[in-house]
Amino acid sequence: MINIGIVGYGNLGKGVEKALQNFLDLQLVAVFTRRNPNDLQLKSKTAKVKRYEEIYAFKDNIDVMILCGGSATDLEVQMPQVAKHFCFVDSFDTHAKAWQYYLCADKVLQQSKKVGAVCVGWDPGLFSINRLYAGSILPGGSTDTFWGKGISQGHSDAIRRIDGVVDAVQYTEPVQNAIFAARSCEEKRLTNYQKHKRICFVTINENANKETIAAQIKNMPHYFAGYETEVNFISLQELRQQHGKMPHGGNVIHSACTGEKNKQLIEYSLKLDSNPEFTASVLVAYARAVKKLHDEGNFGAKTVFDIAPSYLSNMSKEEIITNLL
Amino acid sequence: MINIGIVGYGNLGKGVEKALQNFLDLQLVAVFTRRNPNDLQLKSKTAKVKRYEEIYAFKDNIDVMILCGGSATDLEVQMPQVAKHFCFVDSFDTHAKAWQYYLCADKVLQQSKKVGAVCVGWDPGLFSINRLYAGSILPGGSTDTFWGKGISQGHSDAIRRIDGVVDAVQYTEPVQNAIFAARSCEEKRLTNYQKHKRICFVTINENANKETIAAQIKNMPHYFAGYETEVNFISLQELRQQHGKMPHGGNVIHSACTGEKNKQLIEYSLKLDSNPEFTASVLVAYARAVKKLHDEGNFGAKTVFDIAPSYLSNMSKEEIITNLL
Repeated sequence: MINIGIVGYGNLGKGVEKALQNFLDLQLVAVFTRRNPNDLQLKSKTAKVKRYEEIYAFKDNIDVMILCGGSATDLEVQMPQVAKHFCFVDSFDTHAKAWQYYLCADKVLQQSKKVGAVCVGWDPGLFSINRLYAGSILPGGSTDTFWGKGISQGHSDAIRRIDGVVDAVQYTEPVQNAIFAARSCEEKRLTNYQKHKRICFVTINENANKETIAAQIKNMPHYFAGYETEVNFISLQELRQQHGKMPHGGNVIHSACTGEKNKQLIEYSLKLDSNPEFTASVLVAYARAVKKLHDEGNFGAKTVFDIAPSYLSNMSKEEIITNLL
Repeated sequence: MINIGIVGYGNLGKGVEKALQNFLDLQLVAVFTRRNPNDLQLKSKTAKVKRYEEIYAFKDNIDVMILCGGSATDLEVQMPQVAKHFCFVDSFDTHAKAWQYYLCADKVLQQSKKVGAVCVGWDPGLFSINRLYAGSILPGGSTDTFWGKGISQGHSDAIRRIDGVVDAVQYTEPVQNAIFAARSCEEKRLTNYQKHKRICFVTINENANKETIAAQIKNMPHYFAGYETEVNFISLQELRQQHGKMPHGGNVIHSACTGEKNKQLIEYSLKLDSNPEFTASVLVAYARAVKKLHDEGNFGAKTVFDIAPSYLSNMSKEEIITNLL
């Protein structure tokens, strides 16, 4: 059995706990939290809840830590602390900082002789793998990534900060015509503005002005300005009932021509009812890979690009070749 | 530059020659053939055409051999001969024999200290990778593979062997309802019969009987019996004009539920105007990977499961993380 620890018990941490039930060779040993451990109620009966500071007491009992904190503030602090003593997986997803984050992780892991898989999930993660495979196989082509339909937490938060807004949910949705264009072999470079639209569901105070707020949203720089944005005002009850789930997904589309104008199209797509539960499943599969890599004597930081597919499976080489090749 | 040799100059070998033009760090050194070398006219001006028996003279000039012979008879003979002296990639695709073939390759390569990537292409190959990733991440779900719309050479040949048939082309095509079923999260096991239909375009002799031949096709065991089969009789001219291309493609669909009935769907699909040109591009990308693995001191047989994605790329680690993660 591979012994797992979870650091952080938000949506992602809870998703990891659920996902572990489907992985028969991995078991949850403990959840580490910065909250009061007595306030957390785990689903799994055998696992413990501990304060984050107690993590080091588990050095000999946990094979892989799954870091479920946020990229904005948690991971840059926690990851180097955890990497000093544990193999780990995290879902750091700030693309612009990924290289620095990787270097930071690698530096600690070269010392501790542990393996850490950084930036794991579906984007970065499975989508990245598909961008790499497709671009390497058909080098002359173009790759387009579409996100959605799904909730963007950052954009939802941006709307919530507007005066008069009680609560809000923002869905990012691919523009269908842009998907069709990406599937064609033609030379084109679509911008993110052309590829996505933003659908907002907003609950406002009784005395707030709908037109003013809609304009504030649509013109918000970085977040909405330049995008096709739709603003819907709904009651708080409807917001809670209709928009309480966390769906997401998207497509990586690579099109290219070979030989005499032969169109070749590679497409990878995800349609997820629960974004955190799916991301959690990816993290758990990579936790298995990290354990296998470490058992073979490897150490250092790894991304999904560095890990061969077979490491994710619990099947033997013969089983994989016989059943899946 | 990575120096490449091609063994066999049929559709696949020609596809590899074309594909190499898109890979700036690989160059074609020679094509090896069992035909008279004087009968072959290469597109690339600098590469040589040599008899297959002359292959050993190129031990120091070729980094990776790409084996483009057929699985039925060529590869089982040629692969062990080539593996004694060269790193190689091949597209052996007889699923039932894959494990034995892998063991045979590995035995030779452990001696020669070379790297050989076996069963590379899109199925086996890219589809296999996707079956593995999806099944490892969502272990409770079910994976369905669909092929087509595309030409099946084996089925076309089977029709051609019928008395009175002049020529024929058979397309395998997924049944759309079966694709919809695979995308749902429901428990179901579709058979290949339910998943695919077979569309035949057949040219017959003037005095041959259409009804008899159509019945012979539809009832042919292993090939057509049990499948929804459509037989169209057309002129030889129409067959040549309308059905002379080699399109193919397909889908790998994995659906599963996580948590409280949250449906999670992973789908990988290919839509290819030219099957041999695409397969060739996959082989070339893996030739690069084989060279990199060998340069690092690796040897032995590898499948697509054993090779980390980054080996397929010619970008540096920093470039990959910055641009693709």
